[in-house]
Amino acid sequence: MSTNLNLQAVDAVVARAVLAFDRWKLASAQSRADFLNELAHGLEWSRDPLVDIAMTETSLGKDRLGGELTRTVFQLKHFADKVLAGRLSADVENEVVAGPPPAGHPHLLRTHVPVGVVAVFAASNFPFAFSVLGGDTVSALAVGCPVVVKVHPGHPRLSRAVQAIAQGVMDSRPEWEGLIGLVEGAGFESGVHLVEHPQVAAVSFTGSLVGGRALWKIANAREVPIPFYGELGSINPVVVLPSALEQGGGERAAALAASIAGSSGQFCTSPGVLIGLKGPAMDTFVQSLAAGLSQQGTHRMLTEGIERSFAAGVERLGRLTERGVSPAPVLDPSGVPKPGLFVTDAQRFVDSHELREEVFGPSCVVVLADSPAQIAEVLLSVTGSLTVTLWGLDGDDPAHHRILDAALRIGGRILFDGVPTGVAVTESQHHGGPWPSSTNALFTSVGDASSARFLRPVVLQSFPAWARARVR
Amino acid sequence: MSTNLNLQAVDAVVARAVLAFDRWKLASAQSRADFLNELAHGLEWSRDPLVDIAMTETSLGKDRLGGELTRTVFQLKHFADKVLAGRLSADVENEVVAGPPPAGHPHLLRTHVPVGVVAVFAASNFPFAFSVLGGDTVSALAVGCPVVVKVHPGHPRLSRAVQAIAQGVMDSRPEWEGLIGLVEGAGFESGVHLVEHPQVAAVSFTGSLVGGRALWKIANAREVPIPFYGELGSINPVVVLPSALEQGGGERAAALAASIAGSSGQFCTSPGVLIGLKGPAMDTFVQSLAAGLSQQGTHRMLTEGIERSFAAGVERLGRLTERGVSPAPVLDPSGVPKPGLFVTDAQRFVDSHELREEVFGPSCVVVLADSPAQIAEVLLSVTGSLTVTLWGLDGDDPAHHRILDAALRIGGRILFDGVPTGVAVTESQHHGGPWPSSTNALFTSVGDASSARFLRPVVLQSFPAWARARVR
Repeated sequence: MSTNLNLQAVDAVVARAVLAFDRWKLASAQSRADFLNELAHGLEWSRDPLVDIAMTETSLGKDRLGGELTRTVFQLKHFADKVLAGRLSADVENEVVAGPPPAGHPHLLRTHVPVGVVAVFAASNFPFAFSVLGGDTVSALAVGCPVVVKVHPGHPRLSRAVQAIAQGVMDSRPEWEGLIGLVEGAGFESGVHLVEHPQVAAVSFTGSLVGGRALWKIANAREVPIPFYGELGSINPVVVLPSALEQGGGERAAALAASIAGSSGQFCTSPGVLIGLKGPAMDTFVQSLAAGLSQQGTHRMLTEGIERSFAAGVERLGRLTERGVSPAPVLDPSGVPKPGLFVTDAQRFVDSHELREEVFGPSCVVVLADSPAQIAEVLLSVTGSLTVTLWGLDGDDPAHHRILDAALRIGGRILFDGVPTGVAVTESQHHGGPWPSSTNALFTSVGDASSARFLRPVVLQSFPAWARARVR
Repeated sequence: MSTNLNLQAVDAVVARAVLAFDRWKLASAQSRADFLNELAHGLEWSRDPLVDIAMTETSLGKDRLGGELTRTVFQLKHFADKVLAGRLSADVENEVVAGPPPAGHPHLLRTHVPVGVVAVFAASNFPFAFSVLGGDTVSALAVGCPVVVKVHPGHPRLSRAVQAIAQGVMDSRPEWEGLIGLVEGAGFESGVHLVEHPQVAAVSFTGSLVGGRALWKIANAREVPIPFYGELGSINPVVVLPSALEQGGGERAAALAASIAGSSGQFCTSPGVLIGLKGPAMDTFVQSLAAGLSQQGTHRMLTEGIERSFAAGVERLGRLTERGVSPAPVLDPSGVPKPGLFVTDAQRFVDSHELREEVFGPSCVVVLADSPAQIAEVLLSVTGSLTVTLWGLDGDDPAHHRILDAALRIGGRILFDGVPTGVAVTESQHHGGPWPSSTNALFTSVGDASSARFLRPVVLQSFPAWARARVR
């Protein structure tokens, strides 16, 4: 298809979504929940063929993909439940207070309206959970916004197969027509056209810092700028203090190895930095971790571009770090990434912004610090991260306060146990953090609050009863 | 002071605020509430001299300024109450659910942390309520963020006098030191330096589209971009349908005239467009409105720049509209704006973006439409507005639905009675709307939710009990 035809196709998909919006913004909670549940059933029904296609296109394993499909189905049903329960937005109503301002005021209802058509840029690394029917799509649909999904070029066949299921559901009720559209185009052009489209009201994006920042700039440069919710990369530091190593250090090393190398290290929350205090206990832990990593089975990466970035990233870290305790991570000649570690000194890490850049893949930089205070400094040198994991901070003391305070400055989710990969879909979740992990750290792309990205507050003042039915 | 010294002064003020942040983010609710209440008492105590200075600097009237000071005191006390009641942010906690994901999950607490030092650009038109101790300052302080206020060059003496009061309060407790800093500089440079400062975490701004958009771009162009909450201009359409004119048309005309011309039309929510159906009833209403406007006392505008913009704006509208029913608004030779009306056809209004640009001052464009459907079209041609007022939409019928739906697409607050000027400070308030009325339409600068601009969600996962005390 020529470029021009491609862009016309984008326009046609957006036009259908705009028509759909007029119906969908006023659809009943029951209709919205039914739609999400039907999509969930459709995915579940086609589980085996979908997982097969996904395996071929992404190199991810069968168990991982099956689990991801289960999670995607769960998300759809979870949001359906929340829609029915009216839990995705909260109205606030203040009755008339007689008298002059500022104390007196009219009757006010603070409620929300859906923003309009949302452009969803699918992620490479979650072909189900952050693609055509993934978290961004669900959180938008649930609150009345149609979506146009920019297919990730790493899994076009899967995207089309999932869209065919969605199309079947959309065809079953006139009200659902046009709610989910698909845009393809391997180059940058169709994505740019989508972000620039005057009828697109918001964008969600999961991907690289370079690509995401470029699209974010385009969203801001529009005559009428629109919100761009991007997740652009995160190094997810893990701090391990001595008390965490006294008991169960071996188990922790095994869990961390799996978190670093699982799915060939291609999770948004894969730990890329491990920070500990210099000394024999840490040395032993790092050796256990290295041993654990050597046992992790990895597979080819999601795309050739990601392969190339990983090779360049580990080459860079190899140049910047001073010594190794384990084989350094490498892309082997067959294109499979081999997990491993780099080791560096805390001061060097703080001084080098290149050491703090994300390397997407099964690579981790071990940072050795002299004191808890220096650990806090290391954390603060990371401007933003989706997660920070803090092991061994059980006691209520100033050194721990200092480390947590630093983690709270840079992180969106702070874990005191477990590993950062695996993000629960709950009311309480927050999956977002200071730049560059998110373009807007006040919003999340996982959990109930992810719908808040697509709802705009409005106030009705001194309104007739019928007006309430025009806002849902 | 030379430019260089000026910028050094900015750095010094920010540095003090950064130190203050380390204490303030952990201050008790009681300390925060005490601070806000002390500021309120300080303002109230100096009411007369402050109003006198404000009158000299702004040309605004004594009653208006006294009322604004009362409102500012109310805001401070209101937020103090909300801090004590814990109403400015809501935590969500999910206990452990045993079992594998996606249903099973760890203990999660979604809470919030203050973002850091907030740069507040004071507004010209609210020398108390949106200046040194105004709404932006209060909403930031209440949730743990120190502020650096960029003084509005239209009222520097008043700003210094209010800051002297704040300084007295800050001097009374070590915990309060450095919480409110002042930055001066008539040019653009010190403001730019503030927005570019690496230690500034967010910006709030009320002012012109040109100045606001420029600063917003600078906030986005930083190495680490920061949120910029700007209110950049709004034309606040008022729709009047025939049923609103049948009874009480005269009263409505008088109220609207006062809303258009009050404070010489220098409110963010002053109505700049009146939309009605062609015909004798509307003609009569417009004549009453014109008569009402001729009785409004106006005074010189806030600054010479605003005077010039008003003169240029009414000259432009005069060129673009076809006929008058009342004297067109004009800046008279003594520099006092005289209120008045322009009249135009709906189609012309929809076709001309120049007709839709805000003219800050006592000017209003009457737009005559052929049908309710065309009224909706006129509304939709306005991309964003803080308010939309809809008179005469009592009945639950399709024509009214269409107009309200259009209003909901473009407006932040929809009024069915009364006038848009006068914004209640309540839990339910929303003072923000689609671009350009706000740079981020999901946030408000008035009411309890205004603090949400300065709080970032964080999740604590599997956390020890002591960690709760590090987030407030």
